[in-house]
Amino acid sequence: MPRLLYGGDYNPEQWPEQVCAEDAELMRRARVNLATVGVFAWSKLEPAPGRYEFGWLDGVLDRLAGNGISAALATPTASPPPWFGLAHPEALPVTADGVRLSHGSRDTYCASAPAYREAALRIAAALAGRYRGHPALAMWHVHNEYSSACHCELAAEAFRGWLRARHGDLDRLNEAWSTAVWGQLYTDWAQILPPRATRYLPNPAQVLDFRRFTSDELLAAYTAQRDVLRAATPGVPVTTNFVLGGWVPVDHARWAREVDLVAIDHYPADPGAGAEEEAAFAADLARGWARHGTGRPGWLLMETAPNLIYAADRMHTKEPGRMARQGLAAVARGSLGVLFFQWRAPRGGAELFHSALVPHAGPDSRVYREAVALGEQLDRIAGTAEGAVRARVAVAYDEPSAWALQAPGLPSRRLDHLDEARHAHRALWRRGIVADVIGTLGALDAYAMIVLPGHYLMSDAQAEALRSWVAAGGHLVATFLSGVADEHGRVRTGGYPGALRDLLGVRVEEFHPLGPDDRAALTTGAAGELWSETVHLAGAEAVVCYAGGVLDGRPAVTRHAVGDGVAWYCSTRLSADDHGRLLGAVAASAGVGPELEGVPRGVEAVRRHAGDRSWLFLLNHTGTGHDVPAAGIDLLGGDVVAGVVRLAVGGAAVIRER
Amino acid sequence: MPRLLYGGDYNPEQWPEQVCAEDAELMRRARVNLATVGVFAWSKLEPAPGRYEFGWLDGVLDRLAGNGISAALATPTASPPPWFGLAHPEALPVTADGVRLSHGSRDTYCASAPAYREAALRIAAALAGRYRGHPALAMWHVHNEYSSACHCELAAEAFRGWLRARHGDLDRLNEAWSTAVWGQLYTDWAQILPPRATRYLPNPAQVLDFRRFTSDELLAAYTAQRDVLRAATPGVPVTTNFVLGGWVPVDHARWAREVDLVAIDHYPADPGAGAEEEAAFAADLARGWARHGTGRPGWLLMETAPNLIYAADRMHTKEPGRMARQGLAAVARGSLGVLFFQWRAPRGGAELFHSALVPHAGPDSRVYREAVALGEQLDRIAGTAEGAVRARVAVAYDEPSAWALQAPGLPSRRLDHLDEARHAHRALWRRGIVADVIGTLGALDAYAMIVLPGHYLMSDAQAEALRSWVAAGGHLVATFLSGVADEHGRVRTGGYPGALRDLLGVRVEEFHPLGPDDRAALTTGAAGELWSETVHLAGAEAVVCYAGGVLDGRPAVTRHAVGDGVAWYCSTRLSADDHGRLLGAVAASAGVGPELEGVPRGVEAVRRHAGDRSWLFLLNHTGTGHDVPAAGIDLLGGDVVAGVVRLAVGGAAVIRER
Amino acid sequence: MPRLLYGGDYNPEQWPEQVCAEDAELMRRARVNLATVGVFAWSKLEPAPGRYEFGWLDGVLDRLAGNGISAALATPTASPPPWFGLAHPEALPVTADGVRLSHGSRDTYCASAPAYREAALRIAAALAGRYRGHPALAMWHVHNEYSSACHCELAAEAFRGWLRARHGDLDRLNEAWSTAVWGQLYTDWAQILPPRATRYLPNPAQVLDFRRFTSDELLAAYTAQRDVLRAATPGVPVTTNFVLGGWVPVDHARWAREVDLVAIDHYPADPGAGAEEEAAFAADLARGWARHGTGRPGWLLMETAPNLIYAADRMHTKEPGRMARQGLAAVARGSLGVLFFQWRAPRGGAELFHSALVPHAGPDSRVYREAVALGEQLDRIAGTAEGAVRARVAVAYDEPSAWALQAPGLPSRRLDHLDEARHAHRALWRRGIVADVIGTLGALDAYAMIVLPGHYLMSDAQAEALRSWVAAGGHLVATFLSGVADEHGRVRTGGYPGALRDLLGVRVEEFHPLGPDDRAALTTGAAGELWSETVHLAGAEAVVCYAGGVLDGRPAVTRHAVGDGVAWYCSTRLSADDHGRLLGAVAASAGVGPELEGVPRGVEAVRRHAGDRSWLFLLNHTGTGHDVPAAGIDLLGGDVVAGVVRLAVGGAAVIRER
Repeated sequence: MPRLLYGGDYNPEQWPEQVCAEDAELMRRARVNLATVGVFAWSKLEPAPGRYEFGWLDGVLDRLAGNGISAALATPTASPPPWFGLAHPEALPVTADGVRLSHGSRDTYCASAPAYREAALRIAAALAGRYRGHPALAMWHVHNEYSSACHCELAAEAFRGWLRARHGDLDRLNEAWSTAVWGQLYTDWAQILPPRATRYLPNPAQVLDFRRFTSDELLAAYTAQRDVLRAATPGVPVTTNFVLGGWVPVDHARWAREVDLVAIDHYPADPGAGAEEEAAFAADLARGWARHGTGRPGWLLMETAPNLIYAADRMHTKEPGRMARQGLAAVARGSLGVLFFQWRAPRGGAELFHSALVPHAGPDSRVYREAVALGEQLDRIAGTAEGAVRARVAVAYDEPSAWALQAPGLPSRRLDHLDEARHAHRALWRRGIVADVIGTLGALDAYAMIVLPGHYLMSDAQAEALRSWVAAGGHLVATFLSGVADEHGRVRTGGYPGALRDLLGVRVEEFHPLGPDDRAALTTGAAGELWSETVHLAGAEAVVCYAGGVLDGRPAVTRHAVGDGVAWYCSTRLSADDHGRLLGAVAASAGVGPELEGVPRGVEAVRRHAGDRSWLFLLNHTGTGHDVPAAGIDLLGGDVVAGVVRLAVGGAAVIRER
Repeated sequence: MPRLLYGGDYNPEQWPEQVCAEDAELMRRARVNLATVGVFAWSKLEPAPGRYEFGWLDGVLDRLAGNGISAALATPTASPPPWFGLAHPEALPVTADGVRLSHGSRDTYCASAPAYREAALRIAAALAGRYRGHPALAMWHVHNEYSSACHCELAAEAFRGWLRARHGDLDRLNEAWSTAVWGQLYTDWAQILPPRATRYLPNPAQVLDFRRFTSDELLAAYTAQRDVLRAATPGVPVTTNFVLGGWVPVDHARWAREVDLVAIDHYPADPGAGAEEEAAFAADLARGWARHGTGRPGWLLMETAPNLIYAADRMHTKEPGRMARQGLAAVARGSLGVLFFQWRAPRGGAELFHSALVPHAGPDSRVYREAVALGEQLDRIAGTAEGAVRARVAVAYDEPSAWALQAPGLPSRRLDHLDEARHAHRALWRRGIVADVIGTLGALDAYAMIVLPGHYLMSDAQAEALRSWVAAGGHLVATFLSGVADEHGRVRTGGYPGALRDLLGVRVEEFHPLGPDDRAALTTGAAGELWSETVHLAGAEAVVCYAGGVLDGRPAVTRHAVGDGVAWYCSTRLSADDHGRLLGAVAASAGVGPELEGVPRGVEAVRRHAGDRSWLFLLNHTGTGHDVPAAGIDLLGGDVVAGVVRLAVGGAAVIRER
Repeated sequence: MPRLLYGGDYNPEQWPEQVCAEDAELMRRARVNLATVGVFAWSKLEPAPGRYEFGWLDGVLDRLAGNGISAALATPTASPPPWFGLAHPEALPVTADGVRLSHGSRDTYCASAPAYREAALRIAAALAGRYRGHPALAMWHVHNEYSSACHCELAAEAFRGWLRARHGDLDRLNEAWSTAVWGQLYTDWAQILPPRATRYLPNPAQVLDFRRFTSDELLAAYTAQRDVLRAATPGVPVTTNFVLGGWVPVDHARWAREVDLVAIDHYPADPGAGAEEEAAFAADLARGWARHGTGRPGWLLMETAPNLIYAADRMHTKEPGRMARQGLAAVARGSLGVLFFQWRAPRGGAELFHSALVPHAGPDSRVYREAVALGEQLDRIAGTAEGAVRARVAVAYDEPSAWALQAPGLPSRRLDHLDEARHAHRALWRRGIVADVIGTLGALDAYAMIVLPGHYLMSDAQAEALRSWVAAGGHLVATFLSGVADEHGRVRTGGYPGALRDLLGVRVEEFHPLGPDDRAALTTGAAGELWSETVHLAGAEAVVCYAGGVLDGRPAVTRHAVGDGVAWYCSTRLSADDHGRLLGAVAASAGVGPELEGVPRGVEAVRRHAGDRSWLFLLNHTGTGHDVPAAGIDLLGGDVVAGVVRLAVGGAAVIRER
């Protein structure tokens, strides 16, 4: 029988025995079925080099198993013990400024250091050896939120090796990096360094390659552990939790091919209604990675905060019921379950007020009671675990493009590929159109429509893939800056957006970035923000033009019929609603509509499908009740729904459709 | 005959002989009686290691004595000479990032370095040896504004020693520091470091203990000098000037026990009316430290700027008369005199526009004329030196709590214990209620009412002391976050505010921090800011409730009768006026009223008492004249006051009451 | 026949042969006659130590010569190759925090390192040896934008040597630096360091001298190259491109004496109308440096961006025609031509979107077409190259004063000598009064009026030069802070502004800095901002007084007749219009009026003169057409102008006057 995973990070090593005994009882009451254990336990498992203390973990896993709870057992390699850095100072990371970091926090290691790699494999192998066959072991959770770069000499040497493999010889590297600019031609591999503190602006191609290198270096650290674990426990899935954000030097689309299950951590920043849009984006991105990586659309929400949203200046306590509704929303979009960080709030440490299912106040609390209710709900909709979300629209989000747009020296400091991708996704979400967010431009046949939101980097192969897909009937919407640079971040000359010029049928001569308060009026009465351009038609037709200013009368949005498909170009940033109208119209012409017609704004409607069966998730994020058209059985309430379901304020329904 | 000290920092080493001769004449005209000399004179006193040049200082002290002016003779150890760091590079301080600082400014030394400690004691001993018995010597001013931390290896070793003494063994340290979080269990003392640059957030308990260690390390440097000086000049009081501010790693309540006289430097930041409130807070804090430290309420304003207030973006020139009125206000609150930084404005250096009694313009200036007038006023009220301020209300300000609330990872970035303490003090000040600000929760019997304004850290002993005091009739007002954590910064679980839950008769389940523009409406019509909470009654009664929002109808302010006393809890931040109304009502029920009834807002009224004699200080900080009820002799004007005294705009009266 | 230089930076080393071939054709079409080559070519010219590869540069220069284009040949020493720092790690620069920088950007060298000096001279000599006599060689462009400081041990040793030469002995240095403050008296030269990271505020005199040292150290690096080049190619002028801005540790007034031609790079920050005012200031400053340095008023705009203005948050694309009009404006103010950075937009590197005459879009672009048109215009007005601008007003801008006002510890954080100088210049510019901006207070006889806008530092000799000049009939307007400090940054005591007190006939007792929203009302109805003062008359008369506040009725603007001249003092910052009224009135009394009467605001009018011939440049920066009185032949349009010339929106005229 299918089930949805439910639980979260569990740190019994922080607590005395009686608390752990209570935990087991509380987990059972909440129907928790998966606990992530050992993420930060290295110093307790191996208090001195080579001296292992597994007894306490034996007890933890035995108790979990005894209570019918599975374990996602972590390798604790994200946080080496204090002894590690003292024994291997060369394995501590160095910043771009040359500061060698000290232990005392977490993530303090250099992934290129042999001593670190070896120590990590030893503890992983020791765990695999001890717990292979343990009844609680259901999943391997390797490391935690891989994201740490290092600029030391060991990293430099590894970087050079990676560059040799990527570029082959120095001439090609010099060409790719444009080192003739500012006279930094390399004539010996030994001259190449990570981007360390230098006098003025760094070389953006070097920075971009260093991020790619870091991603691959961390991936190698992951796969080495994965292979040890797979060899020891062939049937147990191995994964690691992806952390999102433009600062993370990890290309998750590549990583998705190396995990048995795409798992993400999700912490929204907007305490308002935007949190639901952020969560939907993250879910659809995880699903996109999974679809192109593991080949299956299922993914797992590995961490999210139960009851708090971490805004910039403070923690926002979620309104009653929001935690559960957000959990259901993740399942709606294909998550295999709902896992929280964390089970029990810690007394101390750097995140001592981080949210938990058992808060500081203890189980006599709203949060724990909501956790119990959510556990019951997830049981009722366990059957949905079989279903998969189907999307015929894709939004492309390319992490290297996001990195490249972080460089100084670009025409505007406010360019952010992640923002643009979220903006396009938001426009679709508000219209109820389900989209995958994809990290690769291969295997596009499943989609009738693709949005490229400022997809700055584009290789020839990517451009060709898009061209073929459009010619075969695809509907493409590219926004400004897409295709402007090649995979090394070099501008393609002759008119923007070089790689897509022919496909889009336009030639952009000049950029006109807009200031925070500037608006570019359009012939539709709408207004663009952030960006505008001098667009020349070169095959395309103008659908919307600029009105007034130096661009008066020039094309703003264009349409180009190519083969059986159409390629649209949007040279400015439309408001979410205006962008939604444009994308909705293109989707309609591509034969794609919203998941459900007649859904009020703020009510999320998504289906999971399994063969000819389907489950319709309806989530009312608004402050008023709504009637929504549906038919079937509401698994949450148990009612038969015949045509219309009533959603209370903040309410949800999961309808096994007829 | 008693006298009030008057004068300030005097740096004749910066000036040629003829200027120094003029200084003596100008000091006599201004009735200056105490000059602080030698604070930054180490490089002039010992221009090479072991080579002393005391001749110039002999001349300075002789001239002072010859003009009837005493000296607070400084040990110059706050600013080692350039040769020191070159001879002892290991004694230069190192930042958390590993940067070893260079000489060239001041305060550049490591207090844990033996070479520094020895050099400091040598110069102190040499000064004591030379000037014991000198007629000018009236006080030792050790060092200057102790406040400098170091993260070097010598500091690390000293930190480890301090931790051994504090925690005993590593198990207890690991427990106190919650090192199981993020896997940083220490298994050898050698693994423990100061909080150096690390990958991510530091351990807040480590940071807290490092601040405590730094305080004790600096204190040891102070007491070593003090003991040398006491031995050489048994009758001469020894002190050091405390510098205030949340960034200073010094627990002044502990230090107050080691000085013969609590002396503070005070530099307000608000050029507006808030400066007077800031000054009153600082004065009452110094008095509180003195009362619990030296055992006497007298303290000394050792430094303040004569004519400037240093706002964030510029210097604000005080309005005519304000300098003198602020000086009298310090005396009103118990200062033994008024000392300024500094006597004469320097021509150069980093603070070349710092205010002085003799400004760049010279004695033909408003400032110097006001200095002469103030000297005369202080002579007229010399008798008040015998008097002491009596306060039956205390506001608790706990520097370690302030440090702990500076950690990242707290529910709001705007939490600041000093702000909250000032806020409570301001509320009382505006109602004319005189309060001590106390740094320890011992010896509470003198007080009828105590306010705990976000007193975050609380040991079991502190909680028990409060409980006993309330049960014996005390009136306690605790505001949000008080008692939430133990002395190591660990949250007390089971419901906030753990240590005070029983005493307050409430159980707080959840925090709801508020954003800068948020307000929490209350049933009184008032509104809370910054913070709100889900409060459950557990013995207390609700006096004010939240109105609207998720907390609608829940308690906001509660009252709990305990034994002969009452414990109030305030779960949000009231405006200063609303907080004043609450505190005023509690004070009234505790039998405490304002110092003087019928005083207009903005007029400060405080008494100094000696036996049955009393002096009433009245200070009109407003822009209009006021009649204030009083009876006696106005020492400043010489008039007999029979029922009412007229205070001019910006005027003052000091009434020897009948 | 005279010609104006036209062209810009050209980097053929970034492009394949076919692009370079196209460049030659495009340059010819645009009438480009000067290309700056080789600025960043070191790593291509000397790919390994001592191994030169000149072949490609031979080809570049041959092709230029073959197309009638001259070369400003650069020495590439601003950007050493990667091999350099690896071979000479001690020649890489060190920050104040002790971080040794790595190659990878540009400007990464220590000018005090012998290895760098030697390597720079070797490549310069090699270039001179190879290209002496090459027909393309028209100018030497040494290095690029000298501006880099270093804090390493080699720099420290050189700094000590420089200080010995400047101060003679340590007593004088201690006195000049006020080291008695904070006890940093130096007793051995070896104790003196560059201003490295220290505990608290640095010594401002040390910082000031270190900037002067850096200027001289860089200048020595320049003159060493210059001498090598002059020896090899006696007839070829040698220069370097000055980069402007308060952060640059270069005293360009001194440097102007060492170049054969003052050349500046100009990048305005204001995309609005202010850009034209910024450009006029930069031009008049370059002319002032040239007049006092080379002795001739001609100068060269060596770099400016063709089509972009770099605002803080984004690049602003210039409106059509603005690039050419700004080029003409530079010529109007004495530039010997118009050179842009750069010829062709790069594909990569840190500045990949930097503007160019041939943009990414290629020659089929508005920018290139405008470049062609500008080339034609410059040909038509080639005769103006003979002319020189005549100015009888000077605004003094003293880079050391600007540095000194950047120190912390000043009465306001918003003091900026460059801002004040621009403010005064703007006030004059808006009234059409042509002024030199001068960097020295010698050779003042040419001027009828001088403005000292916050000229903070002033030596006795400078004050005396001003006094003599006023007594002989000069009209001086000094604004607040002028003359307050001596050349070491020491305040002159006895009343501000010490050095000018007698000349101005005032004595300032106190400063009253104003906050961002504060205004000081004046008796004229105008209002001062930023600053106000307590001014006492001491010979001068009050012309404008403060109205209200603590300064009510006191002098704000004063006038002092001295000999045959007049010295004005302005103690607050007037608005640009009010300041213009004041300066215009003083100018009128000095017999100086606008360049042309009857010119609408926003229309720039400047003449170049040669003997009795004159060319009137008229530049309409406004959005409307204007009729302007003029007579002669408009060289741009070819029309005879008889009394009035019609300027279209954004239009220009260059009139060979009758």
